[in-house]
Amino acid sequence: MFKPPIIVINYKVYNTSFGLSALSIARAAEEVSKEVGITIILAPPSTEIRTLATNVNIPIIAQHVDPVELGAYTGHLPPEAVKEAGAKGFIINHSERRLRIDEVAKLIKRAYELDLTTLACADVPEVAAAISILNPDMIAIEPPELIGSGIAVSKAKPEIIVKTVSKVREVNKKTTILTGAGISSAEDVAKAIELGTSGVLVASAIMKAKEPKKTLEEMAKAAVKASAIKH
Amino acid sequence: MFKPPIIVINYKVYNTSFGLSALSIARAAEEVSKEVGITIILAPPSTEIRTLATNVNIPIIAQHVDPVELGAYTGHLPPEAVKEAGAKGFIINHSERRLRIDEVAKLIKRAYELDLTTLACADVPEVAAAISILNPDMIAIEPPELIGSGIAVSKAKPEIIVKTVSKVREVNKKTTILTGAGISSAEDVAKAIELGTSGVLVASAIMKAKEPKKTLEEMAKAAVKASAIKH
Amino acid sequence: MFKPPIIVINYKVYNTSFGLSALSIARAAEEVSKEVGITIILAPPSTEIRTLATNVNIPIIAQHVDPVELGAYTGHLPPEAVKEAGAKGFIINHSERRLRIDEVAKLIKRAYELDLTTLACADVPEVAAAISILNPDMIAIEPPELIGSGIAVSKAKPEIIVKTVSKVREVNKKTTILTGAGISSAEDVAKAIELGTSGVLVASAIMKAKEPKKTLEEMAKAAVKASAIKH
Amino acid sequence: MFKPPIIVINYKVYNTSFGLSALSIARAAEEVSKEVGITIILAPPSTEIRTLATNVNIPIIAQHVDPVELGAYTGHLPPEAVKEAGAKGFIINHSERRLRIDEVAKLIKRAYELDLTTLACADVPEVAAAISILNPDMIAIEPPELIGSGIAVSKAKPEIIVKTVSKVREVNKKTTILTGAGISSAEDVAKAIELGTSGVLVASAIMKAKEPKKTLEEMAKAAVKASAIKH
Repeated sequence: MFKPPIIVINYKVYNTSFGLSALSIARAAEEVSKEVGITIILAPPSTEIRTLATNVNIPIIAQHVDPVELGAYTGHLPPEAVKEAGAKGFIINHSERRLRIDEVAKLIKRAYELDLTTLACADVPEVAAAISILNPDMIAIEPPELIGSGIAVSKAKPEIIVKTVSKVREVNKKTTILTGAGISSAEDVAKAIELGTSGVLVASAIMKAKEPKKTLEEMAKAAVKASAIKH
Repeated sequence: MFKPPIIVINYKVYNTSFGLSALSIARAAEEVSKEVGITIILAPPSTEIRTLATNVNIPIIAQHVDPVELGAYTGHLPPEAVKEAGAKGFIINHSERRLRIDEVAKLIKRAYELDLTTLACADVPEVAAAISILNPDMIAIEPPELIGSGIAVSKAKPEIIVKTVSKVREVNKKTTILTGAGISSAEDVAKAIELGTSGVLVASAIMKAKEPKKTLEEMAKAAVKASAIKH
Repeated sequence: MFKPPIIVINYKVYNTSFGLSALSIARAAEEVSKEVGITIILAPPSTEIRTLATNVNIPIIAQHVDPVELGAYTGHLPPEAVKEAGAKGFIINHSERRLRIDEVAKLIKRAYELDLTTLACADVPEVAAAISILNPDMIAIEPPELIGSGIAVSKAKPEIIVKTVSKVREVNKKTTILTGAGISSAEDVAKAIELGTSGVLVASAIMKAKEPKKTLEEMAKAAVKASAIKH
Repeated sequence: MFKPPIIVINYKVYNTSFGLSALSIARAAEEVSKEVGITIILAPPSTEIRTLATNVNIPIIAQHVDPVELGAYTGHLPPEAVKEAGAKGFIINHSERRLRIDEVAKLIKRAYELDLTTLACADVPEVAAAISILNPDMIAIEPPELIGSGIAVSKAKPEIIVKTVSKVREVNKKTTILTGAGISSAEDVAKAIELGTSGVLVASAIMKAKEPKKTLEEMAKAAVKASAIKH
């Protein structure tokens, strides 16, 4: 389990998500993590997991794994594959890569067996609560209509975050809750933490930033500050 | 375009398909390729593409790519991703990772633009002919019921190979035709070439072999010999 | 909401699931329902919904609906379509037609708006509990490995039923819980009710029976008897 | 095989696609078919097939069937299901319900065995040619970006139709070629036939028309006239 506050950078598959650019953002994240004292997790494309895991000392998770075992599954990636490459866990059910509920359950169970961390995504509070029954380590609420919009869910729809925290906590006291979708600024990050979650998922705000390190640094400081006030 | 005869090793996602084992098989393949003078292509899991492409000097192709562009597609791999990692092309429509016909068309077109090689798979001669209209560089006939069976299609159903060559050639004179499914021995490889194809796809016969290099060497020699007789 | 005990007959798409045979089984079910005094629900293929709803006076539900709205969705069936044809509800997430968790949530919500009943299926107790958070009217536990096996879950794995009831009731006091998979005899039905569920889902045991009415009658009487003892 | 010119009305799942409205449009189509002397084929939602097939004497085809056999396939419709309900065939691979190429091949083969007609859809000329290798009875070219746009492909992109006819005829002399996507007026229909196809697929232009019969009548007359000029 990772210590909050947490910033997860979902690399997605932008033109900055690969090769030297991927590595440069990872190094910036590693520096910010150390300087500010905050957990930063990277979710690069599968082709970049090993390079990043070898070169930076912050946790790497996969963006997705397939609900298959080792074997004759051409073109699929079982959890073992990303672990072997150096990932510490994986995202499950991102809105751009939804899974069936039985697959979500199976993958969370498999992650426990392989000692991998899981970050499950949900689009609405009810689904977040339903998935939290399956005990993922982290759960992120991401209204799909705000993903990539630049409009932060914490600003535009704070009630969704509040409702998610409340509904999830009715059935699961332990899972770490994160806020995603449209997180663009330090202010958005602070708001997400003030509303009761332990951190954020960001993507384009960092991956498409002119100065990714600067943006990340501001977000990290805001997260730490908001987190300190809360406690 | 690769020079025949061709052996494609589909790593799939066996426990030998990753890390040191993946690299060791790749090195063996590189040696056999040079010693015997034959094209050997490796199709590792996406997490292993970069390591293999960096360490061996024979072509690497991806087992699958997703029909998406660069952008907000969490958990997907566009063709650009595998090219960036060092792949020279990708498999399309393997029986364990089928695609829709419009996706097959789109990916072949995109591969041309990115200067990547395509190897499309088909389960029956009619589908091979249909796909060959879309001009993949290579096309493999793989009856799914024989994949992983240890029973070579070239032995058990030679008429399927003959019919595939005939039907594909009616509409496409150029695409390289390969034989897959159940190829287990040097004899199976020779038979595949005698029946009119330019080489084979193998998977478990190498990936699960006690001595992968020895098996591959025998297959490579048989391919070169059968190929010489044909010409 | 339907009054327990409940027997749901999933017609699936056997050769007996259509036309006159479908109607004959529906009429038998209607008779048994009245004679024995038990709720029997029929889930025929979509092509048969209207005929059955017109000809028998017991509830018809669809085997599946697509998570789409009315509009340009060729080849899909929105909930409105099956309601229009006379269905009172639909099955969601049957193991032979799994859905994503966000789709399950969306369809249950839509069903409420359209005044339709939902019967959600789950393969393991944890998934049953997760789905029950979304408030379907009924939830059925069906271990896929026993579906169509002739081996009743209530006999072979009674602990799965007990665990399902316990886990679902922790988070949902109201949803009706049913037992499915392998239910073949009156004894299996009685056992399912004794273990704490409100009835059963059956398929091949009725659809492939030599005398469907006789089998159904025995099951219905066993259900009523077991139900009476429990209360 | 149906005699050209042909108008296929794809009902999709609009609010007019069900019940009395569905039947009323079907009756209008039947009348126009007889009065103008033209083949009109109806593709209603699966729940409406039997009612329409019973009540009107023009061909009904399904919008989609699943590539499964009779058996334990809850929520799927095998070809046998729609035949039983009165359909004379089915659409395959509509852009709103794409299939894998192996499934397209399997369904066309199965349709021959069941004496059912197939209408396969394609998004680009190359895919139309590829599918035509598999010998569907009819093939429709429908650029997805124009579907439902009200901008007829025959007007906006006539070169796509010409190229489709040319590419399909290189490999298949017999299959009937239709034009779809955006067909809104009698003029669009005439243009589609002048460009070398045997008719059209329409959807919203009829299903959302204030006076469906009037619109259909104009289209039918234009089709017959354009067809007569061509021969």
